[in-house]
Amino acid sequence: MTTRVLGIDPGLLHTGWAVVESHGQSRKYIASGVILPKPKLEMSVRLATIFQELTKICETFDPDECSIEIIFVNKNPKTTLLLGQARAAAIVAVANRGVPVYEYEPNVIKKALTGAGHADKTAVDKMVRMLLPNARPKTPDEADAIAIALAHTNMLKILK
Amino acid sequence: MTTRVLGIDPGLLHTGWAVVESHGQSRKYIASGVILPKPKLEMSVRLATIFQELTKICETFDPDECSIEIIFVNKNPKTTLLLGQARAAAIVAVANRGVPVYEYEPNVIKKALTGAGHADKTAVDKMVRMLLPNARPKTPDEADAIAIALAHTNMLKILK
Repeated sequence: MTTRVLGIDPGLLHTGWAVVESHGQSRKYIASGVILPKPKLEMSVRLATIFQELTKICETFDPDECSIEIIFVNKNPKTTLLLGQARAAAIVAVANRGVPVYEYEPNVIKKALTGAGHADKTAVDKMVRMLLPNARPKTPDEADAIAIALAHTNMLKILK
Repeated sequence: MTTRVLGIDPGLLHTGWAVVESHGQSRKYIASGVILPKPKLEMSVRLATIFQELTKICETFDPDECSIEIIFVNKNPKTTLLLGQARAAAIVAVANRGVPVYEYEPNVIKKALTGAGHADKTAVDKMVRMLLPNARPKTPDEADAIAIALAHTNMLKILK
């Protein structure tokens, strides 16, 4: 069975997204990109941009499942709140289409990809390049979204 | 000119909403209610419920403007994060239809209604009953949404 996974790395300035297909042991890169809501626009319009762009991506690529990171309250609670709002705008776009959303802690994503929960960025990037040589992310947010999608395809094997 | 305002008091358990019409000095109660996403459902589905119900409310009542409280980081940052996500789901529903969203600090809402930024709940409730005797909110969230909508109709006079 082929499963198409949409990975999302949400943010108010840059929301990375990636579509990856999983079939048994094989992985296939489909597409990826970054949504860039204009910082000058009002907060409500920026959130609506994330929602609308991800709705279009769901229409275009018709994912079966979605994978997204759980965020934690960090040193700056204001930043956490803004990130939480961007994340909710992304989740709503996917859940509104009935696509199940899987939420993972950052160290679970790293572990599912590299085998180590505290793997550094280089180890994650290396694994992504090895599994998906065709994916050539242009920004860190796009690379993170690919890693989040890939990690879920590995989790699928464990879950199913 | 008649302006129809949608006031929203967002929350993951209870999202209050109210539609109020403003024409010069007069105010008219149109409708209000509470959205109750089932707590047993997954977070993504609860957020999608808030979005979908508010989208239906926008389709039914066609508001010109929307008014919502700004939230602050409180003692429990986890609670703030959950509230922020519920708030974003609500904002996206309205902004996705092109309705402008006005965000107010809680004390601005109280001041616009009662003249005092630190008015207590009783003073706010009294003012709402005086201005809109037909509104008979059944829950605190519905009452707060009516107050938020009414406060914006008062702000409109100042803004325009």
